[in-house]
Amino acid sequence: MANSLRAAGGKKSNESDVLSLNSIRRTLIQLEDTIIFNLLERSQFSYNPAAYDRNASGIVGFNGSLIEYLVQGTEKLHAMVGRYKSPDEHPFFPEQLLQPVLPPVHYKNVLHRAAASININKLIWDVYFDDLLPRLVREGSDGHCGSSACCDTTILQALSKRIHYGKFVAEAKFRESPDKYSAAIEAQDKDKLMEMLTYKEVEENVKRRVRFKALTFGRVVGTDASPLADPPLKMKPDLVVELYDKWLVPLTKEVEVHYLLRRLDN
Amino acid sequence: MANSLRAAGGKKSNESDVLSLNSIRRTLIQLEDTIIFNLLERSQFSYNPAAYDRNASGIVGFNGSLIEYLVQGTEKLHAMVGRYKSPDEHPFFPEQLLQPVLPPVHYKNVLHRAAASININKLIWDVYFDDLLPRLVREGSDGHCGSSACCDTTILQALSKRIHYGKFVAEAKFRESPDKYSAAIEAQDKDKLMEMLTYKEVEENVKRRVRFKALTFGRVVGTDASPLADPPLKMKPDLVVELYDKWLVPLTKEVEVHYLLRRLDN
Repeated sequence: MANSLRAAGGKKSNESDVLSLNSIRRTLIQLEDTIIFNLLERSQFSYNPAAYDRNASGIVGFNGSLIEYLVQGTEKLHAMVGRYKSPDEHPFFPEQLLQPVLPPVHYKNVLHRAAASININKLIWDVYFDDLLPRLVREGSDGHCGSSACCDTTILQALSKRIHYGKFVAEAKFRESPDKYSAAIEAQDKDKLMEMLTYKEVEENVKRRVRFKALTFGRVVGTDASPLADPPLKMKPDLVVELYDKWLVPLTKEVEVHYLLRRLDN
Repeated sequence: MANSLRAAGGKKSNESDVLSLNSIRRTLIQLEDTIIFNLLERSQFSYNPAAYDRNASGIVGFNGSLIEYLVQGTEKLHAMVGRYKSPDEHPFFPEQLLQPVLPPVHYKNVLHRAAASININKLIWDVYFDDLLPRLVREGSDGHCGSSACCDTTILQALSKRIHYGKFVAEAKFRESPDKYSAAIEAQDKDKLMEMLTYKEVEENVKRRVRFKALTFGRVVGTDASPLADPPLKMKPDLVVELYDKWLVPLTKEVEVHYLLRRLDN
């Protein structure tokens, strides 16, 4: 529930700081840690298919799976303390949310109003459950359905935040070179925008860094001071590199393109 | 929401496995990772006093702080999917819980029934907010009240689970040497029990391991392959060592003693 635009003590945050590429970069790097820590936490449990069976949750009065119940319940609770009023937070079940019980915070919204209509969480949900999770964990059940679903919820929130941060990335890049982007936006040229938003070297750096993070945070640490040359790992680093390469970087850019295409709307 | 005693597919778990010292050790070691990961997550935010002010949450219809609101709400949600029916889970607000909406799971309860009455979460709450948190984070407010309180909630749950796992530790030790413990229990000799439960070498190993974990998981990881000899750290390793030395190990033993004192109750 990081409210990036919510300033200390209710004061308005500094617009230029929120949109500085340094500040955005810090947030994205911190989210790498959050994502990797929580994937490691999830990897200790088996797949636990019962958590995902829409017909077998057994929850009285609820038509869905345990994971749907937990994500919806968590989002309702967090909505009540204002999470989804923050422009960097996106619910998976927007139709289920309750109104906040806290007085409204006045965000200085630095994004174009079109941002509010961009939410690709349905796709993120499918990527996580169909592609990532089955390769992260052991098959079968170990009885830890609840723990598994709690980890899933935290991971989904972090993936969603990372990917939708593309809105801030796009706005910052647009403000740096409005003329350059405006031509492609006016032409509604998606391919051109995607090309302009792609920095191969930056993407390679991200992949290199998340590999080191997976190697570092995923180590099985014992009581021996001298680190082994080849320590046992809780998760394959390739999984995280591929997550970034195949999904997080491309989907963030997809959000950036979506946003820019509407950046000049009246 | 790790249901240590909840077996796969609803089958009863294996009692001897749950109470093997190896299995208990694995759980405690895994909880070290969870605790350290989440302390590192919390350390990225400032203290954010507004989250803890009982008179200033501003939550309509709620008499308490933001953190109380979030922990209570999370516990209500988790209770509904059966978390606190598991003998290794303990709520901070037991009076607030709702009945599960899931069909009951039949736990093979390996503990003496006196276990159910032992809950020192009030003390854990005070230790975390009065002693640990102020030394973990920067002073002041950065506007991330919600994120801070979400991290706090996860940390509290992990600390509580770690400390109350003393019930399983005590039961396993009792079953290994019932005669040895029975004399001290019949005499209700707390000091003797504490002495019998204390293994200095094991405690030193725990402290050594959590220091290495804090040094490893707390590293600021960049894109450079060669690890620095003295890498920047996100949290002082001493803080985690002291947490274990001053609180987690002694409080776990306090739970063990509480439990053993009642182990022979009719």
